[in-house]
Amino acid sequence: MNEQKEKNEMVDILHRVGAVAPREKVYDALTTIEGVAGWWSKDAEGDPGTVGEMIRFGFEPGSAVAADATFRIKVLETKRDELVRWEVVEGPPEWIGTELRFDIAQEDEYAIVRFGHLGWKEPGAFMAHCSTKWAIFMMSLKQLAETGTGAPAPVDVQISNWH
Amino acid sequence: MNEQKEKNEMVDILHRVGAVAPREKVYDALTTIEGVAGWWSKDAEGDPGTVGEMIRFGFEPGSAVAADATFRIKVLETKRDELVRWEVVEGPPEWIGTELRFDIAQEDEYAIVRFGHLGWKEPGAFMAHCSTKWAIFMMSLKQLAETGTGAPAPVDVQISNWH
Repeated sequence: MNEQKEKNEMVDILHRVGAVAPREKVYDALTTIEGVAGWWSKDAEGDPGTVGEMIRFGFEPGSAVAADATFRIKVLETKRDELVRWEVVEGPPEWIGTELRFDIAQEDEYAIVRFGHLGWKEPGAFMAHCSTKWAIFMMSLKQLAETGTGAPAPVDVQISNWH
Repeated sequence: MNEQKEKNEMVDILHRVGAVAPREKVYDALTTIEGVAGWWSKDAEGDPGTVGEMIRFGFEPGSAVAADATFRIKVLETKRDELVRWEVVEGPPEWIGTELRFDIAQEDEYAIVRFGHLGWKEPGAFMAHCSTKWAIFMMSLKQLAETGTGAPAPVDVQISNWH
């Protein structure tokens, strides 16, 4: 009963953006280290193209996060030009065990990305902050795919006192 | 049972931004017609400062929405410098009956806005689009409060083929 209740209360962050680009560009931005460093955090290490690999992202205090932070994600699945799934292994407590999912599709000249940060336990202020921040990073991904230059941390767009 | 199921499946869009401004500026941007026209849509009519009033927002095709659209919202509640709640009365079918909620608080020099678009029936592609678009409009509200100039439709930042 409690387990069922918890499952029902799980909440997701969802976004949808479209880059005027071939979807291979978005897929590459998600599965190469230069790619992820080009839109999420410049401080990135690992091989996001290989399932089972662990990728480390660093964020300076005052960039995407208020405190110095290390995120580690595990590559769960990659399907060329269609899908990338990551599991959060290290990061803010609220993030541990959540999934980051990117579905890619081509609609005319647009590479459409549907993004989900799935499995939050609490729809609180921190989730709301991360929801807005993910929109900003999805716009950074779009910009990277369209122009070759995104706005990854620490040059990410700041949204509040929580950065 | 079905009713219970539907209730459990309701999903919300949540965001959090902070404007370097006194929170009165954010409250004014939500409760005056010049305010709402300054960050959401230039084509706005009505008195958002009065509970029970109906406000009309127009969106040109190619701005915030792909098709020409009229939104009507009813002011449900206003609490000076703290809270604004609107109900969607006319707009996209998925929006009818949903609530738009803005909680405002001052944290040092930041006017913090917690935004919710509450009571979606389906966490689909359109909700994901609206989630990203709301983040863009929350950044427009922040910009308006900080500088006096936001980016309302039809000069809103476009995010995809759905605008």
